[in-house]
Amino acid sequence: MDVTLINTFQAYGGSVNQRTQGAVEAAKLGAVGVIVRSMTTTLDNYPHTGSMYYDGLSLSQRIPAAAISTNGAELLSSMLSLNPKIKFFFRQNSRNFPDVLTHTVIGEIKGSEKPDEIIVVGGHLDSWDLGDGSHDDGAGIVQSMEVLRIFKSLNYLPKRTIRVVLFANEENGLRGGNKYAEVAKLKNEKHFFAIESDAGGFTPRGISFDTSDKEFKSLKKFEEYFNDYGVSFLQGGSGADIGPLKDGNIILAGLRPDPQRYFDYHHAASDTFDKINKRELELGAAAMASIIYLMDNYKL
Amino acid sequence: MDVTLINTFQAYGGSVNQRTQGAVEAAKLGAVGVIVRSMTTTLDNYPHTGSMYYDGLSLSQRIPAAAISTNGAELLSSMLSLNPKIKFFFRQNSRNFPDVLTHTVIGEIKGSEKPDEIIVVGGHLDSWDLGDGSHDDGAGIVQSMEVLRIFKSLNYLPKRTIRVVLFANEENGLRGGNKYAEVAKLKNEKHFFAIESDAGGFTPRGISFDTSDKEFKSLKKFEEYFNDYGVSFLQGGSGADIGPLKDGNIILAGLRPDPQRYFDYHHAASDTFDKINKRELELGAAAMASIIYLMDNYKL
Repeated sequence: MDVTLINTFQAYGGSVNQRTQGAVEAAKLGAVGVIVRSMTTTLDNYPHTGSMYYDGLSLSQRIPAAAISTNGAELLSSMLSLNPKIKFFFRQNSRNFPDVLTHTVIGEIKGSEKPDEIIVVGGHLDSWDLGDGSHDDGAGIVQSMEVLRIFKSLNYLPKRTIRVVLFANEENGLRGGNKYAEVAKLKNEKHFFAIESDAGGFTPRGISFDTSDKEFKSLKKFEEYFNDYGVSFLQGGSGADIGPLKDGNIILAGLRPDPQRYFDYHHAASDTFDKINKRELELGAAAMASIIYLMDNYKL
Repeated sequence: MDVTLINTFQAYGGSVNQRTQGAVEAAKLGAVGVIVRSMTTTLDNYPHTGSMYYDGLSLSQRIPAAAISTNGAELLSSMLSLNPKIKFFFRQNSRNFPDVLTHTVIGEIKGSEKPDEIIVVGGHLDSWDLGDGSHDDGAGIVQSMEVLRIFKSLNYLPKRTIRVVLFANEENGLRGGNKYAEVAKLKNEKHFFAIESDAGGFTPRGISFDTSDKEFKSLKKFEEYFNDYGVSFLQGGSGADIGPLKDGNIILAGLRPDPQRYFDYHHAASDTFDKINKRELELGAAAMASIIYLMDNYKL
């Protein structure tokens, strides 16, 4: 099973340059500002925002850019179709504040046989500014901690060190992930396996492995333990925060939950706790705990 | 993939006799009334109710029976553990009203080559009394109508007659389904295939076929068209309303959506429209339209 054919992340990836590059492209054509229809799967009244870039534009060349809600975009389109000369006015008061210190939070169970080999499970602590970030990525944070809680409650003593890493600052430049990889390299730490949950707290559908074809083939032997729970293995990306750990040796993985609802809430004020289903969240944590257990015990 | 291992319907099926048979069993032991913890996957403040039976008990032997919310049951348990002699008082004012006439609603596209062979797609129009019944079974109703809309919008002329059947009275005795099958038999109608959606409007995970091993094996050839969308074929039940059509010839099927959230809302006041996700609902309708298309064109 390949979940990508119903994967909203693919649609997002294919259209989000309207937001990220829209200002640069519009400025080239002489625009004084740019608005973008929010990148969301739903019709709602929330702006779904996110990063955008001015690339090489000088300060004076930069034009204001904003995302409007999909309902707002529908209204604007219908008004434009009635009167193409309609005027659209928008004012922004956003600004960049100076950096402040934030922290990546780490907890671990020391390995009983190979304490120097590290397995990471994590997500990111920060969220885009508009919502609570319950799915992006509060879910991943809670699931990562839950993995350690599951092992503790089972009195499972891992062979390798299992480390929960709650990464700082994914949204604004991946600085938590970059710093973690930098420090790991400085300390000469051996990272054996890392898995991230950063695609929402929905029913788990797959685990994506960012690794060689040969390695993936050898990992496929574990898939049978997941198939009966509707979780399949695929080859692809892992997670933004663990990506900087990639060094040709570490096996990287990402939890792939059912992606149908993720972009309903993504980077909007609607990404709140009431959108999380406890059972779906727990199933994702169980899937991560299971693959970590298998990797710790049966990966040669 | 077999979705049954994470199938909440199995848990429901294994525990619901506490509600259906609880009064009879408690009465045997001299109880003056019986309450049951709601059959739901969540902790909430809603009673989740449903059918219960007095079997052979005479009117004077019957004791009142009620479902209380899971939060209420937790509270009661904790109070009982503090004081086993605690008194529990409940009053009921429920009664049976006389039957009223309700209708099964039917619409169809006449088949172009084999109009006398009928394909049914349906759900049930009624709901348990406490909620709106948005998942049980408003979702199935909307999806069934959507199948016909999809075919019309594609200008698809089916070879066989495709009939949407919105069954009356599933919850209180299956009288719509029984009557439909009775009339079909009287009219000597040939039903070729029937599929029901009555398990919620969630992301489709499977299609369950109630048919012989041999027939199922031959149907498996269609599964490859669904696997990339995360929908697998399994052998099992179909749907309550189409069940009475079973005659050894008709192929019966049921849509199997992701079952994680269904019993959060089942037969409770919380089964309301805001719990429906448009995209998930549409994917279920698309899965049903696809299998109907394949059955109509490629089933020998």
